[in-house]
Amino acid sequence: MVVWGINMIDQFIILRVNAETKEVKTEPLSGSELLSAGRGFIANTLLNEVETSCDPLGPQNKLIFATGIMPDSRISGSSRLSVGAKSPLTFGIKEANSGGQAALALARLGIRAIIMEGAGDPGNILVISRERCRIEDGREFLGLGNYALVEGLFERYGTKKCIISIGIAGEYGLPIAGIAVTDREGYPGRFAARGGLGAVMGSKGIKAIVIDMSSEVGTFGDSPEFRAARKRYVAAIKNTPLTGEALPKYGTNFIYGPLSALGAVPVKNFSLGSFERGQKIDGEALHRTIASRGGKGQSSHSCSTGCVVRCSNVYVDEEGSIVVSPIEYETIALLGANLGIDSLDEIAKLNYICNDLGVDTIEVGGGIGVAMEEGYYSFGDFKAIEAILGEIKKGSILGRVFGQGTYGAGKILGARRIPAVKRQGMPGYDPRGIKGIGVTMASSPMGADHTAGHTFAADVNHQARDGQVEISRSAQIRRAMYDSLGWCIFHEAPTIDDLGLISDLIECVYGKDLSPEQMLSIGARTLSREIEFNRAAGITLQDDRLPKFFSEERLANFGTIYDLSDEELERTLVDLEN
Amino acid sequence: MVVWGINMIDQFIILRVNAETKEVKTEPLSGSELLSAGRGFIANTLLNEVETSCDPLGPQNKLIFATGIMPDSRISGSSRLSVGAKSPLTFGIKEANSGGQAALALARLGIRAIIMEGAGDPGNILVISRERCRIEDGREFLGLGNYALVEGLFERYGTKKCIISIGIAGEYGLPIAGIAVTDREGYPGRFAARGGLGAVMGSKGIKAIVIDMSSEVGTFGDSPEFRAARKRYVAAIKNTPLTGEALPKYGTNFIYGPLSALGAVPVKNFSLGSFERGQKIDGEALHRTIASRGGKGQSSHSCSTGCVVRCSNVYVDEEGSIVVSPIEYETIALLGANLGIDSLDEIAKLNYICNDLGVDTIEVGGGIGVAMEEGYYSFGDFKAIEAILGEIKKGSILGRVFGQGTYGAGKILGARRIPAVKRQGMPGYDPRGIKGIGVTMASSPMGADHTAGHTFAADVNHQARDGQVEISRSAQIRRAMYDSLGWCIFHEAPTIDDLGLISDLIECVYGKDLSPEQMLSIGARTLSREIEFNRAAGITLQDDRLPKFFSEERLANFGTIYDLSDEELERTLVDLEN
Repeated sequence: MVVWGINMIDQFIILRVNAETKEVKTEPLSGSELLSAGRGFIANTLLNEVETSCDPLGPQNKLIFATGIMPDSRISGSSRLSVGAKSPLTFGIKEANSGGQAALALARLGIRAIIMEGAGDPGNILVISRERCRIEDGREFLGLGNYALVEGLFERYGTKKCIISIGIAGEYGLPIAGIAVTDREGYPGRFAARGGLGAVMGSKGIKAIVIDMSSEVGTFGDSPEFRAARKRYVAAIKNTPLTGEALPKYGTNFIYGPLSALGAVPVKNFSLGSFERGQKIDGEALHRTIASRGGKGQSSHSCSTGCVVRCSNVYVDEEGSIVVSPIEYETIALLGANLGIDSLDEIAKLNYICNDLGVDTIEVGGGIGVAMEEGYYSFGDFKAIEAILGEIKKGSILGRVFGQGTYGAGKILGARRIPAVKRQGMPGYDPRGIKGIGVTMASSPMGADHTAGHTFAADVNHQARDGQVEISRSAQIRRAMYDSLGWCIFHEAPTIDDLGLISDLIECVYGKDLSPEQMLSIGARTLSREIEFNRAAGITLQDDRLPKFFSEERLANFGTIYDLSDEELERTLVDLEN
Repeated sequence: MVVWGINMIDQFIILRVNAETKEVKTEPLSGSELLSAGRGFIANTLLNEVETSCDPLGPQNKLIFATGIMPDSRISGSSRLSVGAKSPLTFGIKEANSGGQAALALARLGIRAIIMEGAGDPGNILVISRERCRIEDGREFLGLGNYALVEGLFERYGTKKCIISIGIAGEYGLPIAGIAVTDREGYPGRFAARGGLGAVMGSKGIKAIVIDMSSEVGTFGDSPEFRAARKRYVAAIKNTPLTGEALPKYGTNFIYGPLSALGAVPVKNFSLGSFERGQKIDGEALHRTIASRGGKGQSSHSCSTGCVVRCSNVYVDEEGSIVVSPIEYETIALLGANLGIDSLDEIAKLNYICNDLGVDTIEVGGGIGVAMEEGYYSFGDFKAIEAILGEIKKGSILGRVFGQGTYGAGKILGARRIPAVKRQGMPGYDPRGIKGIGVTMASSPMGADHTAGHTFAADVNHQARDGQVEISRSAQIRRAMYDSLGWCIFHEAPTIDDLGLISDLIECVYGKDLSPEQMLSIGARTLSREIEFNRAAGITLQDDRLPKFFSEERLANFGTIYDLSDEELERTLVDLEN
């Protein structure tokens, strides 16, 4: 058995932080506990430690940050940071994971997870280094957006840090507040965006977590076997068209064109399926714009050390100065096509403001889309969207309406067509054009979430109903597995048909040989526990539904309609552990 | 057996109205069916006919109007109109009952209930007379407030009508929209105010129901026994201090002073318990103001034919012109003391606007109170309140925020102190000052509702916890009985210790001698069915809670705190039918 390579600690630990008493305790992990990571660790911990009926923003809820099983700097895609809690948006369990450097930074200190408990007064900073783990006064940072906050923290603590933070939205307790994580350049552009986890962090009074990265030691095993396994793994990534070509060139927006052809892009509050001016904002347009502008622009960029896929980007203005990094498909879909906005420059500006506020761009775009359809604003009105974001920043009543997200804002407006499931706004997929993702959005315990089981890569007619339940089910189990290993979604394609590519790496470090079946059972168990949490929290099988209008309105240009039955949706995730 | 006195029909009927097909059917009632009325009829019908998981504003919900068992013109207090549906506010069962002439008008036509089904396009009028029962085009009335609407309908249909209607709030589908009923003068000032029943009526597309009252025939039995029983009944009313003196003189606002002394008046978002300028708006002040102004003012007024209590009033301005009728304690508490407003003239103006919009004054006052505490407005700012009501009228986003009611608005604003139970705003009782009503507000299947089991008349220390569960339980059972007979809440005091006063009247008409136990079992059964509906709709025992702050904050001037345990609240309504 190859032994763990970090030499200053014997084993991983959990940091248990009480936001009220400011006490920080460490708990050792050993043996089989070391194999529970990421989303799986979160599901276990929440189910064991949190009262399912608790107020998500109250002291009983716990906010958990968990690295993957192997957040090593040299394994591409292994360093996602999972964040979880009972969600103030869905009132069910929530895990959202982020790129950036946080998982790596924690791993270098031997920390597998942070469990944050209690509720504290606003304006505290959790500082984590080898010398100290403690809560410090950060009231001077209250009210700051993520960008200025991070600058201020680098000034106070030095720049060799990774920072996890919330903007004003998290301080306000808005259920669309996300948690920002800095990338390799110290830019807070990576997000555990969904489900209001930023509000939970705000309720704990923690404005930021500052993790020391000055130590360069601490990478996983370095045996010849490990190096050989890593080589096979990287070769598979390079040889897979998605990860070797499409993502490095176009980023996540590579998917815009294919989805548009299927009629699966959300346009004007999910009323069309492809946007008449879509070629101005698709993957090709994004790549061309960044490439032609030069300056600090990068059409391919890695959000964390070691990533060879490099699906991130740095978007620049005409002078080549940075506007935002990254700009991704979901934001282009929800703040662009869905709102009738056809300018990447405008979308990038809105994206920057959203990141600074610390809000989920999907929820913002979803809510404003409903308001536009209801006649309160006009589709394509960039100034109106900017003004709404200004209201969110001010904390005005109007701002708080859109701060409720797609579902909340839609309900306030009395709208009939609200694209949300389990109160979570739908991401950039019209389920009439890609029905498998529709099944995932309906049945996932996370609410409408494309990352919970993406079916685009499946070899199937996406507009037909046959087989979609099975495809979504296996995608969800698979995804729960990768999330429970801390593995990036874009490393799924090169490895799914040969899970040995990952289990060989795990074996080198933990000495445990996991069969593909054993690996998939990690996913099934995680999903099953999440559903158990939700049932106890009052979310029923009858909540596994898409909004009615998708099965009542045919998409004009495509003739498609959502025709999976309630029963099909309800049986997607039954008997997971049998 | 004395036979039913209406001579143009043999028996009572139910009108079943399909808002979509516009079909109106009649269903006969006979035998024991005739003893199921009011709130009890509603509980039975909703439980039997409505899917508990349905969208309250969708076609599956049913809106039910039910008279009492004996809505005769000459029995004081017997002509409440119960209205019920699954509530778009609480998502549980809802019954709200109203004074006015509607129950009498329906009874004269032999109609015990209207069951309204389906969903229709907006702008229809249900016209009911001996000659025709049909849905007619009323699109010209869309957008009108209740006052102009009623005038227009009297113009079209003649004035010998009783009108049941919704204002703009019902058209907008706001969950605080109530249903207005005209009184003896044709003034739409009586309301089935609570739980958003006006929005349900709006979802059916019915702007108003016009019931013919031109026939003077049709009163209940007229035997010597009946006349003697009525005489005993009226004597008891006159001899009871509450109904013989307090209510006729001060109206419902008689209670302001005693509640203030207990620290039970909601002041500035339930943060005090008595209002420093309360003597400007109490019962004495109201009586004096109306009496001194003369003109059309009436400090005692009956809302329906036959009532000898006359707790209603007609509030006038300094010129003696009508401002609003009636003005009641709940409105004075929630739009007055709770908002720091110390002027009856201002409260009356707000009351008029609310009636015209067709919104529940309790929910409006509760929501604005939270917003004032959160710093969005100042306590005492009449202009701000007026402006908010203007926004509700316009249907603006801001208006829709306050149109969500106390709970909804409070949640949008992220407030901690939200006075609501089961999403329904708390009426004018701080539970720290009158703990029995606190038990009722926590445990009633209706949500926070003082009319569901008022404990003020109980001979007990209202600030102490002992015995409150038992007092509330019996008050709730009692009240459910009276509501199931269609009996006014203010006729409870003179009859509760001698239920024979009512059962004698019933026996004269139905030939059935009901013992006090049998009468009370009507109440228990009704409550039990309502709870059954709520359980199926997902409302649990854990929802039988007051907001936490009442048990965390002591009232400054009184030292009182809410100290009944969750377990006590949960056991209030167990084993109802044993």
